[in-house]
Amino acid sequence: MKAVLVVADGMADVPLKELNAKTPLEAAQKPSLNRVAQLGICGMIDVIAPGIPPGSDTAHLALLGYDVMEVYSGRGALEAIGSGIDVLPNDLAFRCNFATADKDFIVLDRRAGRIGNDEAAKLAAAITKSLREDPPEVGDVLFKNTIEHRGILRLSGPNLSTMVSDTDPHETGVKMLKARPLDESEEAKNTADILNKLSQQFHEVLKGHPVNKERENKGLLPANTVLCRGVGQMPELDPLALLYGIRPAAIAAVPLVRGICKVAGMRLISVPGATGTYKTDFIGKAKAAVQALQSHDFVFVHVKATDLASHDGKPREKIEMIEKVDTLVGHLLDNVYLDETIIAVTADHTTSSITKEHSGEPVPVAIIGPSVRTDDVVEFGERACAKGGLGRIYGRDLMPILLNLLGKGEKAGS
Amino acid sequence: MKAVLVVADGMADVPLKELNAKTPLEAAQKPSLNRVAQLGICGMIDVIAPGIPPGSDTAHLALLGYDVMEVYSGRGALEAIGSGIDVLPNDLAFRCNFATADKDFIVLDRRAGRIGNDEAAKLAAAITKSLREDPPEVGDVLFKNTIEHRGILRLSGPNLSTMVSDTDPHETGVKMLKARPLDESEEAKNTADILNKLSQQFHEVLKGHPVNKERENKGLLPANTVLCRGVGQMPELDPLALLYGIRPAAIAAVPLVRGICKVAGMRLISVPGATGTYKTDFIGKAKAAVQALQSHDFVFVHVKATDLASHDGKPREKIEMIEKVDTLVGHLLDNVYLDETIIAVTADHTTSSITKEHSGEPVPVAIIGPSVRTDDVVEFGERACAKGGLGRIYGRDLMPILLNLLGKGEKAGS
Repeated sequence: MKAVLVVADGMADVPLKELNAKTPLEAAQKPSLNRVAQLGICGMIDVIAPGIPPGSDTAHLALLGYDVMEVYSGRGALEAIGSGIDVLPNDLAFRCNFATADKDFIVLDRRAGRIGNDEAAKLAAAITKSLREDPPEVGDVLFKNTIEHRGILRLSGPNLSTMVSDTDPHETGVKMLKARPLDESEEAKNTADILNKLSQQFHEVLKGHPVNKERENKGLLPANTVLCRGVGQMPELDPLALLYGIRPAAIAAVPLVRGICKVAGMRLISVPGATGTYKTDFIGKAKAAVQALQSHDFVFVHVKATDLASHDGKPREKIEMIEKVDTLVGHLLDNVYLDETIIAVTADHTTSSITKEHSGEPVPVAIIGPSVRTDDVVEFGERACAKGGLGRIYGRDLMPILLNLLGKGEKAGS
Repeated sequence: MKAVLVVADGMADVPLKELNAKTPLEAAQKPSLNRVAQLGICGMIDVIAPGIPPGSDTAHLALLGYDVMEVYSGRGALEAIGSGIDVLPNDLAFRCNFATADKDFIVLDRRAGRIGNDEAAKLAAAITKSLREDPPEVGDVLFKNTIEHRGILRLSGPNLSTMVSDTDPHETGVKMLKARPLDESEEAKNTADILNKLSQQFHEVLKGHPVNKERENKGLLPANTVLCRGVGQMPELDPLALLYGIRPAAIAAVPLVRGICKVAGMRLISVPGATGTYKTDFIGKAKAAVQALQSHDFVFVHVKATDLASHDGKPREKIEMIEKVDTLVGHLLDNVYLDETIIAVTADHTTSSITKEHSGEPVPVAIIGPSVRTDDVVEFGERACAKGGLGRIYGRDLMPILLNLLGKGEKAGS
């Protein structure tokens, strides 16, 4: 027996007036998702706990069966690892944005006009050069741009602590922040000092850089500062293979989710055209999953596009993305052996198209497979699945339930 | 107000092709179980946690309201106590099988051809004699046969530890195992040494014993070795009477469940003809329960036969046993005062008739009694009860729910 878990990021939503009080999922044409619901067992998942809006990081850790309270150590390191940057135990990693600030350090745009990859690479190279010529007094610093305006800052060395505040104010029109120590330790103070010096140094490098001069000449916003947030350390996760006795593979494009899968010891399968954007190759992912099932017994497939649409507050686009997820699931249904494969579909969190933010409502789940106890639900939707046979479970319960269906449930006692 | 809790061991199952995708419980004729469902409130129980296949030991501890993680200390001691063997704190008890091994200690049959009680008693007597004549260097050793090929080994003395591996390989065609220490302690090493020496000593006693000579002459498998597994210590359970202020009684035949009930301080009521087998006297148990209600306010009734049928992979026999459980419940319904009695029916775990193993799906529960909040469920079954008013609860929640209905709920705060 084998299993595929499809997680459509932020797919769940709330009823929207413009959709006649339906959610985007309820309004979508989704024959394959409905087929999973109809032939399988449905329910609702509180990914973290009832009412708690999950982060994308904690959500995926929970859905993979980890105890988030125990293992979570900040998003920065997970995203760094997913971007191909090594993070060793005790290293700190921050998520960074190139941003635009005025002369008084008031943040004008947290994404520097969504600067592109090429310009970001040039600016990052200038920062790297500066770090080599004028290295910080202690430890080792790496800065790397990732996608568009995004980047990673990694600090290595003695006397570091995650107890340090962001320099990113998380809004525009206010001054960028000084990093502050969040406890009384010497390490926290030291880390805040390093971060503040680096902020200054990065600003000096960026403000006069030819890339920014050119942008300003074109009337574009200059990427003249770097905002840091979400400090994290490498989490200590037992690999899924060890925990559950399975051969796990993952198909995911966005760095954070890739990072989590990598740290969880899953084999990452790269799919050309799987981009983590609206234009991702949904069928390419499905095909890769079918292929991965030949040599793995648990395949995790992540789709980001559904979440992007809700963060942009575009329910129509969200519906379109859900319908593409439906084609992905349809391809799975048509191409796996349904008498020896379990397919589970869910979301990592609700994203409200009204607030454009993660929200704490539970997410629907449907599981199809041989000898699953079916129920009366015939539609994959937030309200339909609430009537399902699984009832309301926690995110961390999903993996044990799938493992049990795989015949790999770990008995308690004898 | 009084309460009866009927637990039919392994009664829950998965949909089976041969039953037109019904479970044995769904396929059974069960008017009395349906009456409890129809007039009562239904739900699903994750006896340990979602997806986790419960052991019979942990399952009953949880259904009686104990925190399994806190109190569980291995099955051996519970089964020993249920077999009438005293186990003191710090004693170790192992579950044993008389088994058949070849000259290279390859296990040919883990049950020595299901050797009978009389022969097993003679072999156990020879072991006891040998232990008296040639006692182990440290501590005290007791070996006692229980039912058929089964037995208990108890070790008493200083420097013992439960951190020791089984000698039972749990399969045939492989060599019986040497006990190994499972941690670095002197106690674990010492215990493994004792167990290995005893294995050798038992083998010497058994291999030339007249009972085995005779069996071999008849073409039967000799019981020439003893396999040990499931080491446990006496768990420290607060008695139910103390925890809940109730007078509890138990009607159970199998040693493990009797052991748990005894350690939980329940009065064990013996029913002639209640054997823990297919042929157990179901109505005898029901009559004993009705009688016990006169002097106790909580009566626990355990039936093993349902589980035996599923471990044997025989859904038709399982249906038959479920229909006998139905007569048991019918007798209760007809003979208790329904305006002052709560009757709850559930299972301790799902046993899949496909895999013949305990499985992690939740089990159905139905509770009838005055002032119970009823629901729309009219059938006692895995899928019907999933729509019940109780929703999905944990095993450890059942006792507080029953106690509340008994008017003995323990208030949190004031």
